Amino acid sequence: MPGTTNGQAEVLRQSDSRPVFQRQSLSFTSTDWRRRIVAARKTGPADTTLAGGQVVNVFTGELEEANVAIAGGRIAGIGDYSRPGHYIDCRGKFIAPSFIDPHIHLESSLVWLPEFVRAVVPRGTGAVVTDPHEIANVAGLGGVQAMRDVSALMPLRIGFTAPSCVPASAMESPGAVFGPREVAEMLTWPETLGLGELMNVIGAGSGDSPMGMKLAAADGRRRDGHAPRVTGTTLQTYLASGVHSDHESTTLEEAYEKLRNGLMIMIREGTTERNLRELLPLATGYTQSRCTFCSDDRDCHTLIHEGHIDSIIRSAIAGGLDPVQAIRMATWNAADYWRLDGVGAVAPGYEANLVVLDSLEEVNVHMTLFQGQIVAQDGQMTVDLPDAPPPDWLTSTINLAPLTAESLRIDPRAATKAVVVEEGQIVTQLDRNLEPRIVDGDVVSDPDRDLLKLVCVERHKATGRVGAGYVRGFGLRRGAIASSIAHDAHNIVAVGIDDSDLLVAIQAIAEMQGGLVAVDNGAVIAALPLPVGGIMSDQPLTVVAEGVQKLEEAAQSLGSSLSSPFGVLAFIALSVIPYARITDKGFVSF
Amino acid sequence: MPGTTNGQAEVLRQSDSRPVFQRQSLSFTSTDWRRRIVAARKTGPADTTLAGGQVVNVFTGELEEANVAIAGGRIAGIGDYSRPGHYIDCRGKFIAPSFIDPHIHLESSLVWLPEFVRAVVPRGTGAVVTDPHEIANVAGLGGVQAMRDVSALMPLRIGFTAPSCVPASAMESPGAVFGPREVAEMLTWPETLGLGELMNVIGAGSGDSPMGMKLAAADGRRRDGHAPRVTGTTLQTYLASGVHSDHESTTLEEAYEKLRNGLMIMIREGTTERNLRELLPLATGYTQSRCTFCSDDRDCHTLIHEGHIDSIIRSAIAGGLDPVQAIRMATWNAADYWRLDGVGAVAPGYEANLVVLDSLEEVNVHMTLFQGQIVAQDGQMTVDLPDAPPPDWLTSTINLAPLTAESLRIDPRAATKAVVVEEGQIVTQLDRNLEPRIVDGDVVSDPDRDLLKLVCVERHKATGRVGAGYVRGFGLRRGAIASSIAHDAHNIVAVGIDDSDLLVAIQAIAEMQGGLVAVDNGAVIAALPLPVGGIMSDQPLTVVAEGVQKLEEAAQSLGSSLSSPFGVLAFIALSVIPYARITDKGFVSF
Repeated sequence: MPGTTNGQAEVLRQSDSRPVFQRQSLSFTSTDWRRRIVAARKTGPADTTLAGGQVVNVFTGELEEANVAIAGGRIAGIGDYSRPGHYIDCRGKFIAPSFIDPHIHLESSLVWLPEFVRAVVPRGTGAVVTDPHEIANVAGLGGVQAMRDVSALMPLRIGFTAPSCVPASAMESPGAVFGPREVAEMLTWPETLGLGELMNVIGAGSGDSPMGMKLAAADGRRRDGHAPRVTGTTLQTYLASGVHSDHESTTLEEAYEKLRNGLMIMIREGTTERNLRELLPLATGYTQSRCTFCSDDRDCHTLIHEGHIDSIIRSAIAGGLDPVQAIRMATWNAADYWRLDGVGAVAPGYEANLVVLDSLEEVNVHMTLFQGQIVAQDGQMTVDLPDAPPPDWLTSTINLAPLTAESLRIDPRAATKAVVVEEGQIVTQLDRNLEPRIVDGDVVSDPDRDLLKLVCVERHKATGRVGAGYVRGFGLRRGAIASSIAHDAHNIVAVGIDDSDLLVAIQAIAEMQGGLVAVDNGAVIAALPLPVGGIMSDQPLTVVAEGVQKLEEAAQSLGSSLSSPFGVLAFIALSVIPYARITDKGFVSF
Repeated sequence: MPGTTNGQAEVLRQSDSRPVFQRQSLSFTSTDWRRRIVAARKTGPADTTLAGGQVVNVFTGELEEANVAIAGGRIAGIGDYSRPGHYIDCRGKFIAPSFIDPHIHLESSLVWLPEFVRAVVPRGTGAVVTDPHEIANVAGLGGVQAMRDVSALMPLRIGFTAPSCVPASAMESPGAVFGPREVAEMLTWPETLGLGELMNVIGAGSGDSPMGMKLAAADGRRRDGHAPRVTGTTLQTYLASGVHSDHESTTLEEAYEKLRNGLMIMIREGTTERNLRELLPLATGYTQSRCTFCSDDRDCHTLIHEGHIDSIIRSAIAGGLDPVQAIRMATWNAADYWRLDGVGAVAPGYEANLVVLDSLEEVNVHMTLFQGQIVAQDGQMTVDLPDAPPPDWLTSTINLAPLTAESLRIDPRAATKAVVVEEGQIVTQLDRNLEPRIVDGDVVSDPDRDLLKLVCVERHKATGRVGAGYVRGFGLRRGAIASSIAHDAHNIVAVGIDDSDLLVAIQAIAEMQGGLVAVDNGAVIAALPLPVGGIMSDQPLTVVAEGVQKLEEAAQSLGSSLSSPFGVLAFIALSVIPYARITDKGFVSF
């Protein structure tokens, strides 16, 4: 499997003429600094000059026609810089800081880091802050370290937060635990900017000791919050944890309450969660410096067809926000929040991480520069990325005990209830007092009543532990579907009619070392390998997006009426979301 | 001398009933955090509740009538908190974050830290960031460490910057050098927030290597700027150093140019430098988050009679700024700039460092709370400070070689020029082609032409080095005045008619281990000891203010027409300010 995928990836990664990107240090060694000084003073040449564009000033809100002189990866000067040298004609265009995503889970793109970079850098992204809690659930600090190693090679500033809630709860069995020790260790990395989203609102409200240790480890650093629908006294109690931000507001009232209680508001536009339209009125003159945009979770399809932060800025402008103010929110406000020095503005001494836009209103990115180098133009990367595959060990994380039909047996005591899923909701409902269908003494699926067997198979440590029960809402009439994307512990979840198809599906995922699969009548009819931690592909973004689409269609061909059966499946084992779940430990209800 | 001064100080430091202030840790230990949680949830009591006041919200600009519940030194909740307990009636009053001075030199108050605290805490100050470059010039890292040791005991958050420019130039001989090694060492302290004001604009424009090392040591931290009248290409060149702020703008145009180039603008209102009236129009809706207030240098008289940041807010409001916006600039903007977590706002989880104001427009501080304790009320401290004298070694830093009249001899080659001082200016002028007065082969003073002898005596290492020359503008008719406050190296400077009075004055300063003195006809007519590093008193602020006043009057009784002869004397050896100076190394002109 790795052989094949690497072979395909190579096709995209090689080109004849493009240079391989190499990151600079941008230090204050005499040589570097003096080069910048000489260019700033106009006593020597700049490396590159962006000539004649309108420069967006996030500090004053002005547009100013000026040349931007770049030397040693940073902006040397802005204004009348016209020494002969490498000129880029920007007449009629706009020069802005490249865009910043202050809260994202890179794993949600379903691709390995370089592919994510190829997707977003041509969209004008210059920095992201990722909470790697998916890979942390699978592979702990080592998994995060693997992402960190690759991040340092990319033409994109990638900051990390230390995951604060792995595992999500005691009702899930992840591959690794991220305790206070791991958090403290990760906070020593220069790339780690703070503590990741504090999702455990209940723990925060009860003074959970390990959480207190994690909060203390992050003293003096940012602590990201995550408090959906938390308001009033509960919010104030939650804030005793010292968190600084929230990206989970869905109503204007909720967001305003959080802002006035001191939280930086990250207005989220993900693939499924879309809060911009509701929250945009929050960003008025007085409060605008306390708002920024984030994507949180954007899948391949959204990244390809809509874009990244560029698309959020575009939507904000379409919604009535002044373009320069929208750009400030997406650049300086995010950089300032994260205390990222020297990015987020077009100003002397700042890293030359810039976008050249054809139009300010349309936010169409003509060119992206990183550390003064052109790294993308007209939608395509203009540099090759260094070879940065995931480490081998991270592509074999599925560790499954032998399974039989007996393993998938539903305990009759749990057979009178069902998890009920709904279109486009990660919140589920609980059905009670069902009459299970019993055949030969076993609880089995009853497709006529849309009561299907749902199993969650522990897959990290070959414990053989399986949770099984009824689910309603998938609507499959035959076959089975399965996935190793199962937030947050990422065990294998499968839904199907009979045990033989379920076993085939689970086994197929194990053989792919993770992925998505659809099975009909004992045969795999569609499969997408996700061998990196069982949650990411090593293939190009477009290949993965097509693969996901085929899988969804396959599930629909088996009878499902959901628009995204795999999207629903991915959250069915997330034990911290009400009201009913099945994890490897069994049926969980609230 | 120490015996006497301590005795007098004791009178002020003892009272019968007041508790001695003790600082808390405000940590995330289970106990502390759970106390806050219980109070926030209203399942247990708060330590203190500020009841019925109008709460100033710096995030939204609103005023809201609410109770503020405090537990474990932090704000637990804001709103309907009414469990029985320690109530403070705030009806008709306003509750705001305590004020923050983001750039100050504490030494300029002329008093040791606890006395400064006693002066400003009743004025509502809750945090300051001090650049200790005066004590660093005298006593290096050890001197700074002595201030740090005391700072940790005070009911005031005192942050430090690591001095970047000690010595100010090679033409001065300070007691200690603060090189890249000292800067790096100091940056490891939790109290050190960044690199202190980068005054060496010329060095920054030439890529000076030790400066590059200091800048690199501060990577990821704040770097304060100091660039008076620096604009255009010179400013852009200076910004290659990565500085983040400036407090030296004197015109609106200059400040606006710095703001648009990315600098945080600290609008300064010191004792002599007053920029608020000119710069206030800078703080509009869009740019306001990039402006704050600072005092830089405030002497005893100003602190006593005008106040501290409270007086700047008051002036800003009188100048037309909205009171809540003025308070935001003086609190949140400063805290956010310095990345001080959990201060600068009235919000849950924040340290309960608060002021209760009688009136929002008048900014009269009724009460100051630090970590939830009332520490001052109606202009007086309500807690005693822990005993925190300077270390003994820091009160004997004068180390003078034996001097004779011969030591003070003016080299005839330097006798054709004079330093010319002017009222209220630290910039001096240079007089040339003078005819010196020669008596018995020696160059001597000529009071009829206002040509007096000025000497600067190296006093740190007993080198016996003396710079001597003519000065014009003091107008003394007889006697001599001398001071060991002589920016930045703080050697002993003296001006007088004849050598015998000059020697008496210098000797008197040596005996006091620093201070100010006036001598007439061989006798000391006024003296103020400043034994702490030779630049600060160990006496109460009012005693020092009176002492300075007496000295100025004594100098005037000797004939000086300057309104502050000692104020002028203090800067006469500062070798980096044009156009003429006398340091221990001799006559310096530009």
